[in-house]
Amino acid sequence: MIKSRAAVAFAPNEPLKIVEVDVAPPQAGEVLVRIVASGVCHTDAYTLSGQDSEGVFPCILGHEGGGIVEAVGEGVTSVKVGDHVIPLYTAECRECKFCKSGKTNLCSSVRTTQGKGLMPDGTSRFSYNGEPVYHYMGCSTFSEYTVLPEVSVAVIPKEAPLEKVCLLGCGVTTGIGAVLNTAKVEAGATVAIFGLGGIGLAAIIGAKMAGASRIIAVDINPSKFAIAEELGATDFVNPKEHEKPIQEVIVDMTDGGVDYSFECVGNVQLMRAALECCHKGWGESTIIGVAPAGAEISTRPFQLVTGRVWRGSAFGGVKGRTELPSYVAKAQTGEIPLDTFITHTMGLERINEAFDLMHEGKSIRTVIHFKEQA
Amino acid sequence: MIKSRAAVAFAPNEPLKIVEVDVAPPQAGEVLVRIVASGVCHTDAYTLSGQDSEGVFPCILGHEGGGIVEAVGEGVTSVKVGDHVIPLYTAECRECKFCKSGKTNLCSSVRTTQGKGLMPDGTSRFSYNGEPVYHYMGCSTFSEYTVLPEVSVAVIPKEAPLEKVCLLGCGVTTGIGAVLNTAKVEAGATVAIFGLGGIGLAAIIGAKMAGASRIIAVDINPSKFAIAEELGATDFVNPKEHEKPIQEVIVDMTDGGVDYSFECVGNVQLMRAALECCHKGWGESTIIGVAPAGAEISTRPFQLVTGRVWRGSAFGGVKGRTELPSYVAKAQTGEIPLDTFITHTMGLERINEAFDLMHEGKSIRTVIHFKEQA
Repeated sequence: MIKSRAAVAFAPNEPLKIVEVDVAPPQAGEVLVRIVASGVCHTDAYTLSGQDSEGVFPCILGHEGGGIVEAVGEGVTSVKVGDHVIPLYTAECRECKFCKSGKTNLCSSVRTTQGKGLMPDGTSRFSYNGEPVYHYMGCSTFSEYTVLPEVSVAVIPKEAPLEKVCLLGCGVTTGIGAVLNTAKVEAGATVAIFGLGGIGLAAIIGAKMAGASRIIAVDINPSKFAIAEELGATDFVNPKEHEKPIQEVIVDMTDGGVDYSFECVGNVQLMRAALECCHKGWGESTIIGVAPAGAEISTRPFQLVTGRVWRGSAFGGVKGRTELPSYVAKAQTGEIPLDTFITHTMGLERINEAFDLMHEGKSIRTVIHFKEQA
Repeated sequence: MIKSRAAVAFAPNEPLKIVEVDVAPPQAGEVLVRIVASGVCHTDAYTLSGQDSEGVFPCILGHEGGGIVEAVGEGVTSVKVGDHVIPLYTAECRECKFCKSGKTNLCSSVRTTQGKGLMPDGTSRFSYNGEPVYHYMGCSTFSEYTVLPEVSVAVIPKEAPLEKVCLLGCGVTTGIGAVLNTAKVEAGATVAIFGLGGIGLAAIIGAKMAGASRIIAVDINPSKFAIAEELGATDFVNPKEHEKPIQEVIVDMTDGGVDYSFECVGNVQLMRAALECCHKGWGESTIIGVAPAGAEISTRPFQLVTGRVWRGSAFGGVKGRTELPSYVAKAQTGEIPLDTFITHTMGLERINEAFDLMHEGKSIRTVIHFKEQA
C-alpha cells in the first residue's frame, strides 16, 4: 500500500475533496503509474453531475492524464518501470474479437469491470479510511498514483512533455480521430463542426489536417470563434443570430449542405441539426458528444434514404497503444498545437476551480499539475 | 395525340379505372414508350392511399415497367425507336452535381418536376376528356403508352423478356443494390433482413451474391419463409413468436449482433430494431422501406457512438442507365431468379386485383401484361 494525494468525488454534485487515499500494489497484468498531469474534461463533470448511469461513488475521476510507470505487476511485458504513458479509457488488448476485427477501436477486454469502476479482477486498488473508492473510466487520473491494466496504457516517447500530451488521452485525440479515422474526411471536403469545446476545436484541427476546403464552426458562444479561426475554421455561425433552424442556415451557405458534420456537444437536437445540414446523396454526420442518459436522437428516415449517413465515434476511433505515439509525434512537431488548448494550469488542490472555469465556458482545457502546489 | 389504355387513379383510396387517355407526342429530350408489362409495387399502393405527400390526382401510377421506344422527341440521341427500355424513377443525366459526384445515384436533373407529377417543362403529356392527368414517379407504367425524359430510360438488350425484367425497374434492383452498392456487404458477413416482400427477398439474393455466411430472414408472416429459404436465407425469425424485442433475439442468436441489417418494410419501429440488432463496433443498418409521412426514427445516440452506422438506400444506389444492363444480364443467367418473384400475371383490366393480392400478402409481384386481356 502506498499513499496518494487524490481528488475524490464522494457523492454526485459535491465538490471534489483532496484527501490522501491508499493505493494497493498492481496485480498481475496491471501497472502503477505516477500521474504528472491531467486535463479536466466535460465527461468528468457529466459523471460528477450524477447523470452518468455508470457513475459510482465514491470514486476518483479523471481520464486525460500523462504519467510515469512506477511498478508493474506479474506478467506485464509491454510496459516497464520508467516508461512514460498515457492512460487509455479505451483499452487495446489486441486479442479480443473487437481488436481483431480491424473495424473498431472498442476493445472489450476490460469493458465490463471498467464500467463498474473496478479493475479486471472485480476489485478496486483505491481505498480511503479502509473503505473502497471506485476507479473511473479505467483511468482515475485525479490521483497522483493510479493503477491501470497493462492493456490500458500507451507508451510514448520520454521527450514529450506529459503536462501537454496528457490532452491526447481524451479530447484532442477524440476530435481529430473522429475526422480522420471515423469520417475519413477527404481533401477539398466541406465540414461543419457543432460545438467549440476541446473536442470541437480538435475536430477543426483534424479537418485542417485532412485538407477540408471549408470548415464551418458553430457555437452559441461567439467568444470561441477567434480560437476556432486560429486553428483553421473558415466560417462562423452563431445559431442565436438566426431565426431559421441552423441546419437550414448551413444548407443555404453551402449550396445544399456539407459533406461532413460533427456534433461535439452531446445535445440530441443538435445531433439532428448536424445530420440534416449534410448534403443529400453523400453527407455524413458523426456524433462525438455524449448525450444525457435516456435522451434519444430522431429524424425522418427520408434523411437517410436520400443518402445521408449517421455514425458515431468514441475516442476518435483511435487504437490507443498503436496509434497514440503518432499523435504525440504530431504534437511534438506542432501539427497538433496543444498549447492552444491549455488555457489554465493549476495544482490538484484547485481542481474544483477547473470545473468552475469549464462550466462558465472560460477555459478550453485546464491541466492539473501534480507537482505544483496551489 | 395518341389514345392509350390506362389505369387511372382519379382519387385517393378509390379503385383504379381503366379508361382511354390521350397521350401527347414526346417533346424535346423525351421519348414515347409502349409499355409491355409492369409490376405492381407497394409504393403504388402507398401513393394511392393518399399518404404520399407527393401524390397528386388524377394520375397514372406504376413505376416498374418494361417497354419499347415508339417515338423520340427533338435532340434525343441515346435512345432510338425500337429500343427496349426500363423506365427509371431515378434518372441518370450524367451532368448534374449528383451524377458527377461519384457518390450517389440520386440524379437531380428532373427531380423537381417529377415530384409534382409533371414532365421537365412543367406540363403533363396525359389527358382525359381534355383535362390533364398527372405523371407518377416519372414513369406512369400503368398506361400502355407513356412519355419519359430521355435521361429516365435504361436501354437493355432486346433478348431480355420485358414481362420479367420489368421487375428490375424497382423492387428487385432496390433490394439487391442496397446490399451490394449501399451497404457493400462482404463475403462471410452476417446479415438480417426485415420484411420479406419483394425488396426483402431481393435483399436476400443480394446477400447471397455477396457471399454472406448467415442470412437471417425476419417477418411476421411465416408463409414467406419457404421462398426466403429458396433464395438463400439461413435463419428465420417471426417476431410474434418471441416475447423479447426482436433486436435482442437477433443479438442473442449472433453473439452480439449482425454485421449488416436491412429494413424493407417502412416501419419506423422496425428501423430502430434493425439498427439495434447490429453488432457494436461495426454493424451497419440500411433503411430501404418508405415510412409514412411525418414518421420519425429514433434511438439512443449511444448506439451510434459505440460504432453502429445508420444509412439509407434509394433504388439500391443503382445508376439506372449505366448499371441496369448488368442486372438484366444477371437475370438472363439466372443469378437473379426473377421467376421466383412473379407469383401472378394478369391483364391491365384486372389491376385492382393485383392491389388486393398485395394487401392480402398473397403475392410477391403481380405483373400486368398489356397484351393480355382479362
